[in-house]
Amino acid sequence: MNSASPSTALLTDHYELTMLQAALRAGTARRRSVFELFPRRLPEGRRYGVVAGVGRALDALERFRFDDEVLEALRDVVDRPTLDWLASYRFSGDIWGYAEGETYFPYSPLLTVEAPFAEAVLLETVLLSIYNHDSAIASAASRMTSAAGDRPCIEMGSRRTHEEAAVAAARAAYVGGFATSSNLAARQRYGVPTAGTSAHSFTLLHDSEEQAFRAQVDSLGKGTTLLVDTYDIAEAVRLGVEVAGPSLGAVRLDSGDLGALAHQVRAQLDSLGATGTRIIVTSDLDEFAIASLAAAPVDGYGVGTELVTGSGHPTCGFVYKLVAREDDTGAMVSVAKKSQDKISIGGRKYALRRRDRHGVAEAEVIGIGTPPVDDGDDRSLLVPLVRRGAVVGRELLDDARARHERSRAELPIAAQQMSRGEPVIDTQHVGA
Amino acid sequence: MNSASPSTALLTDHYELTMLQAALRAGTARRRSVFELFPRRLPEGRRYGVVAGVGRALDALERFRFDDEVLEALRDVVDRPTLDWLASYRFSGDIWGYAEGETYFPYSPLLTVEAPFAEAVLLETVLLSIYNHDSAIASAASRMTSAAGDRPCIEMGSRRTHEEAAVAAARAAYVGGFATSSNLAARQRYGVPTAGTSAHSFTLLHDSEEQAFRAQVDSLGKGTTLLVDTYDIAEAVRLGVEVAGPSLGAVRLDSGDLGALAHQVRAQLDSLGATGTRIIVTSDLDEFAIASLAAAPVDGYGVGTELVTGSGHPTCGFVYKLVAREDDTGAMVSVAKKSQDKISIGGRKYALRRRDRHGVAEAEVIGIGTPPVDDGDDRSLLVPLVRRGAVVGRELLDDARARHERSRAELPIAAQQMSRGEPVIDTQHVGA
Repeated sequence: MNSASPSTALLTDHYELTMLQAALRAGTARRRSVFELFPRRLPEGRRYGVVAGVGRALDALERFRFDDEVLEALRDVVDRPTLDWLASYRFSGDIWGYAEGETYFPYSPLLTVEAPFAEAVLLETVLLSIYNHDSAIASAASRMTSAAGDRPCIEMGSRRTHEEAAVAAARAAYVGGFATSSNLAARQRYGVPTAGTSAHSFTLLHDSEEQAFRAQVDSLGKGTTLLVDTYDIAEAVRLGVEVAGPSLGAVRLDSGDLGALAHQVRAQLDSLGATGTRIIVTSDLDEFAIASLAAAPVDGYGVGTELVTGSGHPTCGFVYKLVAREDDTGAMVSVAKKSQDKISIGGRKYALRRRDRHGVAEAEVIGIGTPPVDDGDDRSLLVPLVRRGAVVGRELLDDARARHERSRAELPIAAQQMSRGEPVIDTQHVGA
Repeated sequence: MNSASPSTALLTDHYELTMLQAALRAGTARRRSVFELFPRRLPEGRRYGVVAGVGRALDALERFRFDDEVLEALRDVVDRPTLDWLASYRFSGDIWGYAEGETYFPYSPLLTVEAPFAEAVLLETVLLSIYNHDSAIASAASRMTSAAGDRPCIEMGSRRTHEEAAVAAARAAYVGGFATSSNLAARQRYGVPTAGTSAHSFTLLHDSEEQAFRAQVDSLGKGTTLLVDTYDIAEAVRLGVEVAGPSLGAVRLDSGDLGALAHQVRAQLDSLGATGTRIIVTSDLDEFAIASLAAAPVDGYGVGTELVTGSGHPTCGFVYKLVAREDDTGAMVSVAKKSQDKISIGGRKYALRRRDRHGVAEAEVIGIGTPPVDDGDDRSLLVPLVRRGAVVGRELLDDARARHERSRAELPIAAQQMSRGEPVIDTQHVGA
């Protein structure tokens, strides 16, 4: 991210600014504060969640600045002293968090932000937006890639979500184990591998399916994927192998009973000698449809709508709560609201993944104060992301992807069940 | 949008580019083509949909250009002749569509894009992303504002969706009748009115609720909204009126049984002489919760998660299909694929809203060719948006909002029912 990138400071709720104004005037804006970003629960029926968006949040933090254009937009939102304070805004605090790709459970302290109230409160909206969206996508993606086993999942949902959310979704899906994406901006910005061949419109553009297939193979090579369901599938498969030869890369099925069709097409391809030609299926797939195709001769799954909408859970419901702050003597005190149905737990947390001696996760251990001495099986979950305002937690996206694979593999086997159930490990609150 | 705004050309699926490459090589890229963006159905149970994103799509079109940075990103995606063609890309075609805020039904031809195949196919992904997202939000918003009647709805869902989707959601919610938003970028970019006061963290920052309320009223004035459910609601209401006086603007309830609490708080406020103090409720509201609070003394609804996730339907399922194209003689021919479960209807369409003599909508009439002579009650639904590549369909957001109100008011009364049902008017396909 270079400094010419647009500011993220207005991707914010109005009330963060009015709170700032009131706190500045009251003299409480500088109180050292600890905010925590956490889920109260997993989406109903889900066994685990996946943290994503960490790298994007760090980018957004670096671009969170109140330049002239931003200040101009805030002229009628806050008063002059507040605008003056904002003009020199720079986050000076510390942030710890779960690393990207890590699995999470109810009350996992995904981010801990420690800074003067004024600096930390302003980050609430943009941090929640990024974490709530990206983690929802990665959580769905992980279930899909788990269901797909060794077969690659291809992200192709850009058209079914906001055009910028699509880029983030492609990135989060990659963290969750997807092999490739259709989204070219995700390729450019994050290095997500992309792939693409053709749509029905390409076939319809041409005077015949044969003309279309020849045009595609001429340009993209025999290794391309031909879309075979525009007219008659059996005829298209025959034609595809005739045009490309038995080394045709793949055929794609985008409608109908995918399981039954895959068997028919596989038999036909084999009979034509195209034993290496793969079968890619697409068409409103979700993790359940993927699982149901496990016995079908399918070589890859293209997933769109259900991936980018979080497969029924498009947001994670993470919240960002003040859990501790300086009092008027300068001491830090834990705070929590008492609203009847929205509990938060005061104090700055540690978090450990407790594992049995076989390395299988047993519990999410969350406590206040000093963590217990590691007996060798516990794994500490918080890593430094920002120190004194400087980003220190940046990493390669492939490292997040590899971490997710390890973290998921460590969970009890029930995490792989598609059926609805409880979180696969319990959250244990220690001390306090 | 100025020309310094970032290009939108990579908010695109890889396969649009590979199709372009193959069509350029085959000599079919210049064939005049008509693409149509339309829904095959409404989300299950919904009575009508709302078109939004038109203005954003026109902005995106103007920024859809292949500058050096974009071409560099495509170097390993397409071949040299394709890159050369892209370098001089400029959309030269015509686009008609439903105006922003208009209601729609199954098969409503929301956009018709007529241009050489190469130019039109590239727009598929970004147009669908914008329309699918924004219309999903506006459709949910419209049901919520319908349920709220004269009481204002306040959009505050930014934190529960992607940070840029949040801006578009605030805009779409405004089209759908929301009064204000919390999103400051929506204020800056689109002039959406914003409002905001304080969160629980502000109360918890201070040594007492009284200190917090005094700080807020000192800075934001007596007209502010005090959040009264951090500790004890009755005590907070008493304190709020003590601090601000009986002209306190409003109190906000963010947890608990909102209907019962609203009655209690109203009685308490009235007994304290604060008869003009409004009661704002927030906390996972959707259109059903809003409707269920119709008899409670509530003065405004803050809606977050359910608005930005489309209240169960986060995407519209619009598709973008080639419906006609030039053949090798230069004549235009209708085309349609024959996939068994995904029908598209060939040919360039007109669309009319048929109304009875009382002005109540009766049917969505969609046909190919020349529309029937208007008998005075039909309303033509397609307006020119782009002519020979130049945007001609730009309008004020308030005009889209007013159009939505008119279009919704014209629907049969059953459109206001919250319960699941069929589209409130039928789609009639004429001619072909």
